[in-house]
Amino acid sequence: MKNIGILGSTGSIGTQTLEVIRRFPEEYSLTYLTTNGNIELLVKQIEIFKPEYVCIAREELEPDLRDALGNTAVHISSGRNALLDLAANNEVDLVMNGLVGGAGMEPTIKAISAGVDVALSNKESLVMAGGIINNLLQIHGTQLFPVDSEHSAIWQCLTGEDHADIKKIILTGSGGPFRTKPIETFEHITKEEALKHPNWDMGAKITIDSATMMNKGLEVIEAHWLFHLPASAIEIVVHPQSIIHSMVEFADGSVKAQLGLPDMKIPIQYALTYPHHLPADWERLDLTQIGELTFESPDLNKFHCIQLAYEALEKGGTAPAALNSANDEAVAAFLNGAIPFHQIPNILEEAINNHEFDSDPDILAIQEVSTQISKFIQDKLSVTA
Amino acid sequence: MKNIGILGSTGSIGTQTLEVIRRFPEEYSLTYLTTNGNIELLVKQIEIFKPEYVCIAREELEPDLRDALGNTAVHISSGRNALLDLAANNEVDLVMNGLVGGAGMEPTIKAISAGVDVALSNKESLVMAGGIINNLLQIHGTQLFPVDSEHSAIWQCLTGEDHADIKKIILTGSGGPFRTKPIETFEHITKEEALKHPNWDMGAKITIDSATMMNKGLEVIEAHWLFHLPASAIEIVVHPQSIIHSMVEFADGSVKAQLGLPDMKIPIQYALTYPHHLPADWERLDLTQIGELTFESPDLNKFHCIQLAYEALEKGGTAPAALNSANDEAVAAFLNGAIPFHQIPNILEEAINNHEFDSDPDILAIQEVSTQISKFIQDKLSVTA
Repeated sequence: MKNIGILGSTGSIGTQTLEVIRRFPEEYSLTYLTTNGNIELLVKQIEIFKPEYVCIAREELEPDLRDALGNTAVHISSGRNALLDLAANNEVDLVMNGLVGGAGMEPTIKAISAGVDVALSNKESLVMAGGIINNLLQIHGTQLFPVDSEHSAIWQCLTGEDHADIKKIILTGSGGPFRTKPIETFEHITKEEALKHPNWDMGAKITIDSATMMNKGLEVIEAHWLFHLPASAIEIVVHPQSIIHSMVEFADGSVKAQLGLPDMKIPIQYALTYPHHLPADWERLDLTQIGELTFESPDLNKFHCIQLAYEALEKGGTAPAALNSANDEAVAAFLNGAIPFHQIPNILEEAINNHEFDSDPDILAIQEVSTQISKFIQDKLSVTA
Repeated sequence: MKNIGILGSTGSIGTQTLEVIRRFPEEYSLTYLTTNGNIELLVKQIEIFKPEYVCIAREELEPDLRDALGNTAVHISSGRNALLDLAANNEVDLVMNGLVGGAGMEPTIKAISAGVDVALSNKESLVMAGGIINNLLQIHGTQLFPVDSEHSAIWQCLTGEDHADIKKIILTGSGGPFRTKPIETFEHITKEEALKHPNWDMGAKITIDSATMMNKGLEVIEAHWLFHLPASAIEIVVHPQSIIHSMVEFADGSVKAQLGLPDMKIPIQYALTYPHHLPADWERLDLTQIGELTFESPDLNKFHCIQLAYEALEKGGTAPAALNSANDEAVAAFLNGAIPFHQIPNILEEAINNHEFDSDPDILAIQEVSTQISKFIQDKLSVTA
């Protein structure tokens, strides 16, 4: 029996993780669930999965949660610090970090430092603090299992292989909803258009990241830290059908790929069941039905965010954290209607160029950069508003 | 330093194996080379690779070979028995069996029984005597490394995986030169048309097998013995570009594939360097250049040989050996102009139905079936000629 904690249990990754766990009642037991503020869904999850602890990040909602639950055996807490305490709970064997954005970084660090393995959907953890996290993994002898479909694909392709034999990794991306849209029309993109992903059903933040292709840029940085490869050995290929989830090319020119229908439940389940593939009854990939898979190079002119991510990775230090924090703010601003879609890369570039660069930051310096950047963008937006 | 023996060094697989070995002079030393009768090429190979032993299968050519070599340190022998003796030479760490057709089976058995690992390009060994070979591998603690691009792909996809997690394997095939040709026109197919494979540069026998798709049928039987899977867990998908060389679907719906340009040197090198991928300077796969990969179900009506192979596998015993021997004869007859292309499956079916079936044959019984079948087809052809 594996004890599982889920950070962000009411979000897209969290609910799918619970769907997987529900199918293996003999294998997994839930130690804790956390939500930002979705009381209704959390209450249902508590009834079904009977976790020992729950935490609601929005402190002011704790009384409502207690009212909704009535008499219950579950331990209830609230607020950011309580969430970080749960992340550090070492009764847990594996924590699924399904938090969204930079807020997911510190819980990852808490879990690893407590000796708990992390199934990481929150790519921002590695984007912002990959070097620090890799050090902590070594110190505490803990493991990080990628949940992103691309990184799960690479991880699966590398099973049983010697890392020294890797020539490069190839991250595939659908190209998002605007792959074929002329750049001249980007200024008129609406929120509704940007939220319509052609293949994947994901949360709002990551769906916008997919539309700007920043998602792919962040994945390059994530891949760098997960697989210990330089930027020059990490390529992006656009593959609109999202069937090949990523690939590894070896020194002899042999390429391994992992494929599947675009369903996050496969990488989520694999992170839980690794190194095994447990049975699942969901729909199977049938390539004869799909008929064709296509591939093209990404348009770096249209999707400047990709270029920004490679530059930040090359620069190192606080640059990727600055990029990520600026992106969190810019995406939120776009979703709130505060900025148009095509302004996102410009805002990121400006924010990165204006932050106080530190070539060897500790976690406090990274958090400081994050605060600085948030303030910079919010100030800028309030001036232009 | 690994000592290598090559059975069929002047053939397509043999010459490509030597190309690979030439790039790693520190890693491999050649113990022996054998040829059917290509003295000119063998002499060149002896000069470059300096093997300890050579054998020419056509006994009557030994004097010519001795003349061509003059004074030399290499041990020369000739004839089938001498070839079998070399196959059993246990100074060798790995033998590459690049022989063509059923004649390759006995050398495989000799090598395994001498405790020598075999890199197997000769799929007929497993098609005819898979059960016997698997027993011998266990008894002698030897290993079989697939060289066929499809089986090498599956082998690579299974690296580090638990076989219990396999749901099925998917063998890809180009569909050969007649994939889109209407069945009504099959009776007019010429030898030249059948020898033109769209993607792979291979020997004549295997190129015809590719045109009838019997090659894919034999590969299903080969896969059954290599990967210990029932016929129902082995699928064929037609993939005209020959970029995905085969796939494995796991219990969770995750699919792994191995890809590369259609170049036998990759699987040949991997069989030599396993478990590592050593550097190679040949051309790399670039999916953005290839643009699209397509997939379709095989047309079992047009390519009846596939159906015959599944039936032989289900029937077991001597049925696959009979199928294989009949196919060796039928392909030779087609190449000699004795039968038209579209008659190949009919001849196979008749030969299988008329052989003396044995449900649990030993190696002598298999060889007896082979002789019977050859005689049956030759008699039949001399009557109709």
